[in-house]
Amino acid sequence: MDRTALAALVTARLRDVPDFPEPGVVFKDFTPLLADPEAVAAVVADVRDRFGGRVDMIVGIEARGFMIGAATAYALGVGFVPIRKSGKLPRQTHQACYELEYGTACVEIHADALTQGHRVLVMDDVLATGGTAEAACDLVERAGGTVVGVDVVVELGFLKGRDKLTRYEVSSVLVI
Amino acid sequence: MDRTALAALVTARLRDVPDFPEPGVVFKDFTPLLADPEAVAAVVADVRDRFGGRVDMIVGIEARGFMIGAATAYALGVGFVPIRKSGKLPRQTHQACYELEYGTACVEIHADALTQGHRVLVMDDVLATGGTAEAACDLVERAGGTVVGVDVVVELGFLKGRDKLTRYEVSSVLVI
Repeated sequence: MDRTALAALVTARLRDVPDFPEPGVVFKDFTPLLADPEAVAAVVADVRDRFGGRVDMIVGIEARGFMIGAATAYALGVGFVPIRKSGKLPRQTHQACYELEYGTACVEIHADALTQGHRVLVMDDVLATGGTAEAACDLVERAGGTVVGVDVVVELGFLKGRDKLTRYEVSSVLVI
Repeated sequence: MDRTALAALVTARLRDVPDFPEPGVVFKDFTPLLADPEAVAAVVADVRDRFGGRVDMIVGIEARGFMIGAATAYALGVGFVPIRKSGKLPRQTHQACYELEYGTACVEIHADALTQGHRVLVMDDVLATGGTAEAACDLVERAGGTVVGVDVVVELGFLKGRDKLTRYEVSSVLVI
């Protein structure tokens, strides 16, 4: 599937939800995409075209990044590592925090999740301001891995998340 | 891989973490399994042997059920639907609550996630007391689906979760 057709398919499988999780925000709900196995297969094939053979491990960001990341890891025959919100991983972790509009949020990776030389693709559903993705890349590197790229289904271009990720190859199926 | 070899492989990829998330509990951490693509493929193949051709949709329970559930849905070529903790799904939901040792917890499914006739496999990493799995099956049925089975990687047999799920086909790779 060419990238224009893929973007159209993904667009048709997204739902805009106004005022979620708070007033003024339009949430991009990708659960209809996940429910359509052909759409998931097309997104995964696109990731494989770009990163297949260049990564050993996919890191998915809690929680929607688990869904698309684990499916892609299976398809590529590589391992999967979760990055979770603070306090959810049971063993020793590295932690990275980032600023939200009000306050901060922190995410963690198991300290032994990666080893030197692991080539890692970081995956999530949406790239917004880039704070979470930047923290995730920081965690991958502190755990010993090399960030090969950051891949998301939907990029909210107007929030300029890429500006925080200029050191990395960033790709998205759909830019809004 | 026969089921004895599979159980041995899964056992080797689990980590016991004492006193997590609270004192006296031994947490079964399956992140080392997820990091090993051959182990994931073996678990997924086992699910396919048992449920392939009999399900149209896999429902994964937040958050570890997303990881194994989404990989399995991809492998079986069926859709994936998340059941999430309260307040996380953006559109109209059905909600089911269940008792914890102290207090209650609630989970939700999008009201339009399934349609009449969808044959559903509910997946999670661990079956413990069965409260969450029972709530998940209730949600699947209220959303219009039919529960074909409940599949987990690890079943804590001594907690008798199966006793809450006698109406369903319950399977696990490893019973502890």
